Amino acid sequence: MSSADPASLGRALCIITGASRGFGRAVARELSRLVTPGSGLVLAARSGEDLRAVREELAASEAGRAGLRVESVVADVGRTEGLEAIIRAAKDALIEQVDHVMLVNNAASLGDVSRFAVSFNDLAEVDSYLSLNVSSAWCLTARVLQAFPQRPGLRRTVVNISSLCAIKPFPSWALYCTGKAARDMMFQVLALEEPDVRVLSYSPGPLDTAMQVEARSRSADPGIRKLFGDQFAEGKLMSCEASCAKLMKLLLEDSYTSGAHVDVYDL
Amino acid sequence: MSSADPASLGRALCIITGASRGFGRAVARELSRLVTPGSGLVLAARSGEDLRAVREELAASEAGRAGLRVESVVADVGRTEGLEAIIRAAKDALIEQVDHVMLVNNAASLGDVSRFAVSFNDLAEVDSYLSLNVSSAWCLTARVLQAFPQRPGLRRTVVNISSLCAIKPFPSWALYCTGKAARDMMFQVLALEEPDVRVLSYSPGPLDTAMQVEARSRSADPGIRKLFGDQFAEGKLMSCEASCAKLMKLLLEDSYTSGAHVDVYDL
Repeated sequence: MSSADPASLGRALCIITGASRGFGRAVARELSRLVTPGSGLVLAARSGEDLRAVREELAASEAGRAGLRVESVVADVGRTEGLEAIIRAAKDALIEQVDHVMLVNNAASLGDVSRFAVSFNDLAEVDSYLSLNVSSAWCLTARVLQAFPQRPGLRRTVVNISSLCAIKPFPSWALYCTGKAARDMMFQVLALEEPDVRVLSYSPGPLDTAMQVEARSRSADPGIRKLFGDQFAEGKLMSCEASCAKLMKLLLEDSYTSGAHVDVYDL
Repeated sequence: MSSADPASLGRALCIITGASRGFGRAVARELSRLVTPGSGLVLAARSGEDLRAVREELAASEAGRAGLRVESVVADVGRTEGLEAIIRAAKDALIEQVDHVMLVNNAASLGDVSRFAVSFNDLAEVDSYLSLNVSSAWCLTARVLQAFPQRPGLRRTVVNISSLCAIKPFPSWALYCTGKAARDMMFQVLALEEPDVRVLSYSPGPLDTAMQVEARSRSADPGIRKLFGDQFAEGKLMSCEASCAKLMKLLLEDSYTSGAHVDVYDL
């Protein structure tokens, strides 16, 4: 399925989790510029203050002044109330009938990288990580697709913000790798089951974000600390904006294989 | 690392989850024949009656009469008490110092295959599946490796009973595929982090078990029902014994790459 206008994502309802900072915020900014008037943007995050700043920035932007509806919702995607709040906000953001519904599952946590897998003997700790990083994205996706069912003229796109860690193991990153591998597979199954939904797992590359600070300072494995420390020192981390621009190009061209894992370095 | 005697797994402490029936029971039977006198076998399962039958069978077998210690423990690996009970039973099964500790993470559930991914909007349902199928194997592995730490002369082997579903998506099997993909990745990270531990993800192939009955009768996707129905009708399902024999050959030869996913059809 190709967009009629390759320079726009259409009159869209876009839902972005983890939208208050880092890559999620970059996605929110870019999407606000690529949707046509009458569109709605739903920004979800756990932290209220940063989120409000992004909402105000976008509401005051050219798109906002031209009528883009921007809703923000303080919600934990790892809790049912959080998922319900996001769906409510999405319905509120709908000014008129849209021709595109897009969900960007960006919210994620790195997990405790200061310890090795053999130290994770507590079910509750692993359960909690998987709930926040796997179940949350799956159940939110299910709820969005249920709330905005298939109808003629409606495109539906689900983006999974993935990682190289979904396909390559990294020492001291067992939680993160396991969660990302699980998510990639879930979205592959979804793509097979729902041929009318466009599903993309996008690996944004090593980004200059708070998560990378944690990665290079706290990882238990010295090789990993050095790898990410060197990438930072040598200016090899990508900006959220640069990686996000590549994601937008993918979404605009709309020619990726549904369910595929696409890495920023493949582009 | 190669075994001194390729016809034996040594004086071993072997822990098998889901040991009361199907593939787990086949593994228990085979291992009982491949360990030397002074070894211990710990059989864990949720169902007490079938488990007792396997324990009695092995205790009365040639190996049992020759002094193999067989402990059974009714335990839910998805609960902390279950994990604790398995470690206690493992310590009880230790008659003398062993030269090999082996854990076979076999317990698993198929999940509800009668529905598609888009219907899973309940965090608790997905959380519960991931806990039983991912966290459980991870935390039990951590506890076993902690309870039996590295020492000179001790080999430690961890087997993850995997599936083709860990690497290939199947419609209507989102839970199972997601769980198996997550497990494979976790064990890949473990293999990198613990070079002294031998880690194997073994995909046993489509087996003639209760899980296959569920697969061919309840899967939401008609293509999947037909695929497994045909495999059954054409006698293409493998017996647990045949697949288990191939796993034993792998373990005896001990030349697989640690962390690798090995499929029965690759052998």
